[in-house]
Amino acid sequence: MRYKCIVSYDGSNYFGFQIQKNHPSIQGEIQKALKIIYQDDIIIHPAGRTDTGVHAYGQVFHYDANIKMAPWQIKRALNSRIHKDIYIKQVELVSDDFHARYDAKSKIYKYLINLGEYSPLLKNYCYQISDNLDIEAMREAINYIIGEHNFKSFTKNHKLTNTIRTIYTMDIKKEDNFLIFIIHGNGFLHNMIRIIMAMLIEVGKGKFSPQYFKEILVAENRIFAAKTAPANGLYLQEIIY
Amino acid sequence: MRYKCIVSYDGSNYFGFQIQKNHPSIQGEIQKALKIIYQDDIIIHPAGRTDTGVHAYGQVFHYDANIKMAPWQIKRALNSRIHKDIYIKQVELVSDDFHARYDAKSKIYKYLINLGEYSPLLKNYCYQISDNLDIEAMREAINYIIGEHNFKSFTKNHKLTNTIRTIYTMDIKKEDNFLIFIIHGNGFLHNMIRIIMAMLIEVGKGKFSPQYFKEILVAENRIFAAKTAPANGLYLQEIIY
Repeated sequence: MRYKCIVSYDGSNYFGFQIQKNHPSIQGEIQKALKIIYQDDIIIHPAGRTDTGVHAYGQVFHYDANIKMAPWQIKRALNSRIHKDIYIKQVELVSDDFHARYDAKSKIYKYLINLGEYSPLLKNYCYQISDNLDIEAMREAINYIIGEHNFKSFTKNHKLTNTIRTIYTMDIKKEDNFLIFIIHGNGFLHNMIRIIMAMLIEVGKGKFSPQYFKEILVAENRIFAAKTAPANGLYLQEIIY
Repeated sequence: MRYKCIVSYDGSNYFGFQIQKNHPSIQGEIQKALKIIYQDDIIIHPAGRTDTGVHAYGQVFHYDANIKMAPWQIKRALNSRIHKDIYIKQVELVSDDFHARYDAKSKIYKYLINLGEYSPLLKNYCYQISDNLDIEAMREAINYIIGEHNFKSFTKNHKLTNTIRTIYTMDIKKEDNFLIFIIHGNGFLHNMIRIIMAMLIEVGKGKFSPQYFKEILVAENRIFAAKTAPANGLYLQEIIY
């Protein structure tokens, strides 16, 4: 049987999603709980990795098991055995050819900025700038990355052969002192959103113009985008199938 | 010189405000930073203690120092030396007879409940019930504790001789799946708000009636109020002078 699970987690105390030898990881914690339930080693396959400190409301993974259990039983069993930093929101029996990564059509991420006074309570949950950002300039810059583009300038991984991705939408909402960015695309390169965010913040601060943001994209070279916004502001919201 | 400071903190990783011998505390962290700045042991005096896991947006303390420094310099020096769980929001030079505890006229606390699905991201920041609560019944119960009363039923500390306190207002707001309680009083006994909250939640769940809530108050005996709501939902919002 193949199961699809939706999971939310606080990434603050983990070295990312992917299992690590000597460090806590989300995958490691989930597999530990699955081992208790199934009395067997089970490997989970996520829709994608998230980096150290990145959070998720709607990460998806699948796994295979030989013992039949009802989805609600698995959900209850997993949540009662897993660390409270992780919560299994949904378990679903799927066909054997479902694949969390290959079948994902698009992904939605959120990036959260606090423009107000530093709050120790938000230390792990947003990027705290305590500055004014020119939202209109940022919106103008965003227009240049909507659609299909080569995002080579915006990735950490230079070995990738295919760096073409499509961003469907990217919206900015202002709520009190918070800026909320919602970005929807067919896929994202390693660190792509955090590099885009770092460059957008430079635009917002007036360090460079929206047009220069376009030049970074066209340059197809990371050297023009040498910053990465902090992981703690980033949330994987939803995987769309 | 005497200085008054307003401080916010994430209480999740501390054994309360008050300094402890072998455990991290908010007071301990602040005094460590003050020692670096003044090269001298400085004792701080808070408006009141907060328990393990309780948060603050507006705790107040005062301290005395012989070296003259501008308030903005102290603020900057403290925040650059202190753990990111703690933030000094304001430093002010006050007269030598100001006292953070004795001069406090009233205090405002917030208690936060998540009625929606469990969120690992809010693990330390609210009480997660995932249940329906009858808000109108809770409002009715609250009416009985507004004003000056003997709150002996609602404290952990039975040695206190004066258990009379005044609650000026207690409001409930519902925002999405959250219930936000704002309570304003001239002072609160040890665990008083958390015991009130635990009993209110029982009313909200229909376990007992608003009238029984009144009987608890009148009984002046903790045995009728044998529960305490979790610390992580409680925030010290403001001290009024």
